[in-house]
Amino acid sequence: MKKVRFNIKGKRTVELVATDDENLLDAARRAGVMIDSPCNGNATCGKCKVKIVSGHVKTTETRHISEEEMAQGMVLSCNSTIVDDIEVEVPDLASSFVNEMQITDLSKNENDNIKHVRKKLIKNGMTNASRLWSEIIQLNHPTVEDNMADEDRLKQYFKLKLGYNDITLSLNVMKKLPDAFRENGFEIEVVYLKRRDVAEILDVKPANGNKAVLYGIALDIGTTSVSACLVNMDTNEIITKVSMGNAQVKYGADVINRIVYSQKPGGLENLRHAIVDESINKLIEKLVKGAGIHKEDIYEVCAAGNTTMNHLLLGVNPDYLRKEPFIPAINVIPEMKCAELGININPEGKIYLAPSVASYVGGDITAGVFAVPIWIQEGFSMLVDLGTNGEIVFGNKDFLMTCACSAGPAFEGGEISCGTRAVPGAIEEVIINDEDLRPFYNTIGHLSPVGICGSGIIDLICEMKRTGIINGKGRMDRTLNHPRIRFDEYGIGQYILYSKELDNGTKDIFITEIDIDSFIKAKGAVFSAIYTLMESLEMPIDVLDNIYVAGGIGTNLDIENAIALGMLPDIPVEKYYYIGNSSMQGCYLALTLTEGKDKIREISKNMTYMELSVHPTYMDEFISACFIPHTNLKLFPSVGN
Amino acid sequence: MKKVRFNIKGKRTVELVATDDENLLDAARRAGVMIDSPCNGNATCGKCKVKIVSGHVKTTETRHISEEEMAQGMVLSCNSTIVDDIEVEVPDLASSFVNEMQITDLSKNENDNIKHVRKKLIKNGMTNASRLWSEIIQLNHPTVEDNMADEDRLKQYFKLKLGYNDITLSLNVMKKLPDAFRENGFEIEVVYLKRRDVAEILDVKPANGNKAVLYGIALDIGTTSVSACLVNMDTNEIITKVSMGNAQVKYGADVINRIVYSQKPGGLENLRHAIVDESINKLIEKLVKGAGIHKEDIYEVCAAGNTTMNHLLLGVNPDYLRKEPFIPAINVIPEMKCAELGININPEGKIYLAPSVASYVGGDITAGVFAVPIWIQEGFSMLVDLGTNGEIVFGNKDFLMTCACSAGPAFEGGEISCGTRAVPGAIEEVIINDEDLRPFYNTIGHLSPVGICGSGIIDLICEMKRTGIINGKGRMDRTLNHPRIRFDEYGIGQYILYSKELDNGTKDIFITEIDIDSFIKAKGAVFSAIYTLMESLEMPIDVLDNIYVAGGIGTNLDIENAIALGMLPDIPVEKYYYIGNSSMQGCYLALTLTEGKDKIREISKNMTYMELSVHPTYMDEFISACFIPHTNLKLFPSVGN
Repeated sequence: MKKVRFNIKGKRTVELVATDDENLLDAARRAGVMIDSPCNGNATCGKCKVKIVSGHVKTTETRHISEEEMAQGMVLSCNSTIVDDIEVEVPDLASSFVNEMQITDLSKNENDNIKHVRKKLIKNGMTNASRLWSEIIQLNHPTVEDNMADEDRLKQYFKLKLGYNDITLSLNVMKKLPDAFRENGFEIEVVYLKRRDVAEILDVKPANGNKAVLYGIALDIGTTSVSACLVNMDTNEIITKVSMGNAQVKYGADVINRIVYSQKPGGLENLRHAIVDESINKLIEKLVKGAGIHKEDIYEVCAAGNTTMNHLLLGVNPDYLRKEPFIPAINVIPEMKCAELGININPEGKIYLAPSVASYVGGDITAGVFAVPIWIQEGFSMLVDLGTNGEIVFGNKDFLMTCACSAGPAFEGGEISCGTRAVPGAIEEVIINDEDLRPFYNTIGHLSPVGICGSGIIDLICEMKRTGIINGKGRMDRTLNHPRIRFDEYGIGQYILYSKELDNGTKDIFITEIDIDSFIKAKGAVFSAIYTLMESLEMPIDVLDNIYVAGGIGTNLDIENAIALGMLPDIPVEKYYYIGNSSMQGCYLALTLTEGKDKIREISKNMTYMELSVHPTYMDEFISACFIPHTNLKLFPSVGN
Repeated sequence: MKKVRFNIKGKRTVELVATDDENLLDAARRAGVMIDSPCNGNATCGKCKVKIVSGHVKTTETRHISEEEMAQGMVLSCNSTIVDDIEVEVPDLASSFVNEMQITDLSKNENDNIKHVRKKLIKNGMTNASRLWSEIIQLNHPTVEDNMADEDRLKQYFKLKLGYNDITLSLNVMKKLPDAFRENGFEIEVVYLKRRDVAEILDVKPANGNKAVLYGIALDIGTTSVSACLVNMDTNEIITKVSMGNAQVKYGADVINRIVYSQKPGGLENLRHAIVDESINKLIEKLVKGAGIHKEDIYEVCAAGNTTMNHLLLGVNPDYLRKEPFIPAINVIPEMKCAELGININPEGKIYLAPSVASYVGGDITAGVFAVPIWIQEGFSMLVDLGTNGEIVFGNKDFLMTCACSAGPAFEGGEISCGTRAVPGAIEEVIINDEDLRPFYNTIGHLSPVGICGSGIIDLICEMKRTGIINGKGRMDRTLNHPRIRFDEYGIGQYILYSKELDNGTKDIFITEIDIDSFIKAKGAVFSAIYTLMESLEMPIDVLDNIYVAGGIGTNLDIENAIALGMLPDIPVEKYYYIGNSSMQGCYLALTLTEGKDKIREISKNMTYMELSVHPTYMDEFISACFIPHTNLKLFPSVGN
C-alpha cells in the first residue's frame, strides 16, 4: 500500500492510498483526478503523460516519451505501476481540456442556417411557437353550489376557455394546486405543454402580475464536446451558448473505449455520472448563473447525442452496440422527466432525446438532418457530419440513406499531438509560403496559439502537400533541410508551426507524420463512406445539388482544401455549405417549433441505414482513399497532382 | 428540560428529553410512542389514558379519570404537562389497537357478493380477466441485415403477433432490455398492462421455462382500519386478507382531527408516513411473507379511500376539505407508480385510486357502488356505507345521488368506552334476558371478549331499549336496582356486559350513557341523511327495491335491530343485504376485470353530490332522528314503542 499525491498544476492536491501494483491511470481515476486518456490506457495516444516528482514507478519505454522527457520524470500514466510512495504532477492542459467552459455565440454560419431553415419549415406549415406555454388565468371562486375539485376547475377552464380536451398533471403539481389557487384569489399562472388536444400541466403558481419568462435548453451531447444553448421560449432567442469537453473523455476518447470501460465494475455508473453531473449539469449551472435566471424556469431540454451517448445518459448497457450485429437497446427514447435522469432543471421539466437510427447513426444525425433541408427538397443533397464518427445522410424528400464510419477524434483535434477543439487560441487557418516554407496562421479570437483545431489541420496538411513538404502518402520529404522540419529519435518527421525557439513562442506546436497518418485515415474513412454509399445506390456524385458539412471542425473550414485533401467529393465549392453544429441546430429547431420533435421522429423512421463495416467493398475503398487526394485521381479532376 | 421515559407495556422503553412545559401527548408523538387519541387532544374521548409511574405532571380533572384511577397515577396524556422527570406506562391496548394485524378470510357475505356481482358484470359485457398479462415470447435473433434495436424488436412482436398498435416502457425497463434479451437466446418473459391497443411493458426477464405468477393487491384505506387482499391475477383468487388499524389514528380518530393535525409543522408528512410506511407497507410485507412470494411479483394495487385519505396518501394539503365550501384538490387521481408514493411492490407497479366525488364522498364509495348492482338495475336501490363517515348513494342505472354525514367512529367501535373494531374476541351479538336483565353474547371467533364491535353495540342498545333499561333518549331507568347497572361519581349510568366481579372475567366491558348518546347521534346522522336525500328527490322510502348495507360494523349485523333503533329505514328486512366491506370488493373487482377501473371513473362522473351540511332541513331531521327509534314514529310503523 503506497501513498500517492497528485498535484494538479496550480489547482489542487489529491491524495490516495494505492492498492498493490496499482496502475497509475487507474489510481488517478479512482481519486477523481482527470487525466486525458483518449485511447483508454492502451499506450497508443500518448496523452496521459504525467511527471513523477518524487518516488518511483515501474514503467515501459514508449515512443511517446522522449529521452529528455524521461530524464525529467515524465511517464505515461497508463503504462506505469505504483511501486513506491510517489508525488505526481498532472499537467494543467489535461484537466483544463475537459473542465473549462467556453461561453460563445453561435457562429455566423450556424445563425444563418438556423434562421434560414426555421423560416423554410414555417413556410412548410410548422407552427412558429414551441409546445411550452403559460397563461395567467382567473378561475371562479368555488361555492357550495359550484363545489368541483380544484383539478376539475382547472380542467374545466382548459376545456371551455382554451379548447383542450383534457389536462394531465403529476403528483408534484397536484400538491401545489390547493394553496396556489387560494394564495391570490384563484388567479393563477399555469405552465403547460401542448400535446395536441391535451394540456400537460407542468407548474401552477399564484399569479403575481407578470408572466414568468420560460426557458428551454438545446443540448448537443458529443463524444468529445458537450454544448448547451439557453433559449428564451417566448421569443425563441438564444440567450447564450456554453461548451465544454465531455467529462467522459477521461474514460476513453471514442465510443468504443467508453463502451469497453462501461463493462468494468461501476463503469456504466461512472460514465453516466460524468455526462450528467460533470458535464450537463455544470453547463446548465453556468447558463443559469450567466443569464441570472432560476433553473426552475427551465422546463424543456431538447438533446441530441449519438447512440452510445444516449445509452450512457440513460444508464443502459451499451455493450451490444460494439459487438456484431451492432444492436442498440433502444433507438426511439420516450420523452421523460429530466429529474429521472438527474438533470437539474424544473422538477417537472422534460427531456426529449432525438431518436437514433442504428448503433452508429444516432440522435445527433437525426437532429442534424432536421436542421438541413435535405428531407424537404425535390433534388438530392447530402449531410456530412464530421465528428468522432463521420456520418453521411443522402437523399431527398422521398428517401434518406445513411451510413457511418469511424473517423476517430482527429477532426476535433483529438489524437493529434498538438490538436485541440475549436476553442479560443486554436489555429484555424494555415498558409505555407511556397518560397521559404514559413507558415502563416490565424487563431480563433486572434489569441496566441494553444493548438490546432480541425480546420487548421486540414489547411496545414493541404499546404504541406502543395508545397511538397509531404507526398500523397503523407511522408515528409527527407531531402529537405529546414529549421521547421525535424525528425525525432525514431525517425518520425515533424513540421513546426510555432515554437519557443523559432517564434519566441510560449510553447511548441507541430504536426508529426503519425498525426498526418491519423488524419489521412480519418479523411479516407469519410470519403470512402460517401463513395460507397453513392456507389451502392448507383448514383454519380454529381447528382448532388448540395452538400452540407457539419461538425465542430472549426468555423473557417476551407472546403477547397478539404476537397484537395480528398476528404470531400470533388464537386463545385458553391454547392457546399459549412453549417457548423447541425445537431445543436436541430435541437434548437425542435425546441422552438411545435411539430419539431415529431418531425425528427418521422425523419428517423424514413432513414435507411447501411452498415459499412460488413459492406463488401468498403474496406477496399477505404484503403484507396488513404492517399492525398486519392489513389484514383479520376475522382478528383479539379485537384492537381 | 425534563427526561421522560415511556414504558410500552411488555414491549419496549423509549426515552426523550421534553421541552419546557411540553404536553405529554405531544411528547409521546414526538418520541414515536403510539397513544390512542381519537379526539386528537381535546380531552373529550378519554382514550389517551396513561399511568405516571414516577415523577409528576400538571393535569386537569376530567370525567374520564375516576378517583380510583387518579390515585393510581392515571392521567389523560393530552391533558397533562410535563413539569418533572417522569416515567410513564403506556397501556398495551392503545398500541396494539393499531399495530396488530389480523389475517382473515373475506366473510361469507363478502364472498357471495363478489361472486354474484362479478358474474353479473361479465354478463353485462366486461372481460373476465385483468389488464395485467404476461407472455413468454421467442424473438428472432438480430443479424446485420435484421438489425433493429431491441426495443423495436419487442415492439414489432407486439404489433405483428399480439395485435397491439404500440408499446411503452419506462427507464427501468429500458435498462433491462439488452441483457434480458441475450441471457437466454432472445426468449423472454414480458409482463405488461393492456391499455386498449397499447401495451405498457412493466417487466422484461429472460424466460426460464415457467411463467411467474403475477399478483395484485386490493386495498381499502379506511379512516379507522386498513385492509389489503392479495390476489392471484391469473386465477382471480384472493389468497389472503390482512387488516390493521390505520396508523394515522394516533393523530386523530376522524378525518377532521387529522386534517387539523396536518396543518401543524411536519403534520402532513407524519400522516403520509403513517399510512404508507406504518400501515400499507406493513400489510404488504405481511401478505408477501404469508404467501411466500416476492414483492416484485406484485404489479398492481387497486385502492379506495375517502377523499381525505386520498389527499393524505398523496401528501396533498387536505385543509380545504374541511372548510366551507369543502373543496378537494383532486377527485380523479391519475394512475401512478406505487414507487412514487413510497408503496413497496414491483418498482414498475401501478396504483389506481378509486376517484372521489366530493370532499365527503370518496373513492371508498365509488368503489363500493361498483360492487353493488345499483348502477346496473332499472329499479331503485341504495347503498348505505357505515364507516367513520356515513355515506348514502341512491339511484338506478340512469342516475345516482349521493350524500355523506359525519357519523363518528362509533360504528367501528371508536369513541365507545369498550368499543373495538370487528376483530377476534369482539362481542358481535347481544341478547338481554327480559326477566333478570342478564346479557348473553357471542364473540368473533368465540374467544373471551375483548370489547364490543359495531354490530354488538347495535344489539346491546336495542336490547337495553327493548328490556326497558334505557328509554328513547338513551337515558337509563334510575329506578332499576341491578348488579349490572351502576352510576359513576358524575351520575353517568353504565350497563355491565362482562366484568371481573360478576363474570369472573379478565376485564370489564360495559356501555355508558355517554356511549349510547354517541351512538344515537351516529345513527341519527345516518338516518336523517337517508331521509333528507329521499325527501329532496320527493321519493318515498318504499320505492327502494334494495338497500345494501356496507361497512366494518361486524359480520352479524342484525338488520331488524338496526331498524328498531331507527338507524335504517323501516322497509322489509328481505330487501336488505349486508355486504360487509364494499369498498374492498370494488377494488377487487376493478383489479380483476379489464374495464373495471374505467367503469368506476364513469360511475363517479354520474354521481350527483348533495352537500348536507348546508341543506336547510338536514339539521332539523338530525335532531328528530336522535331518539330511539325516532321522534316521528310514523316513519317506523313496524317498530313498537
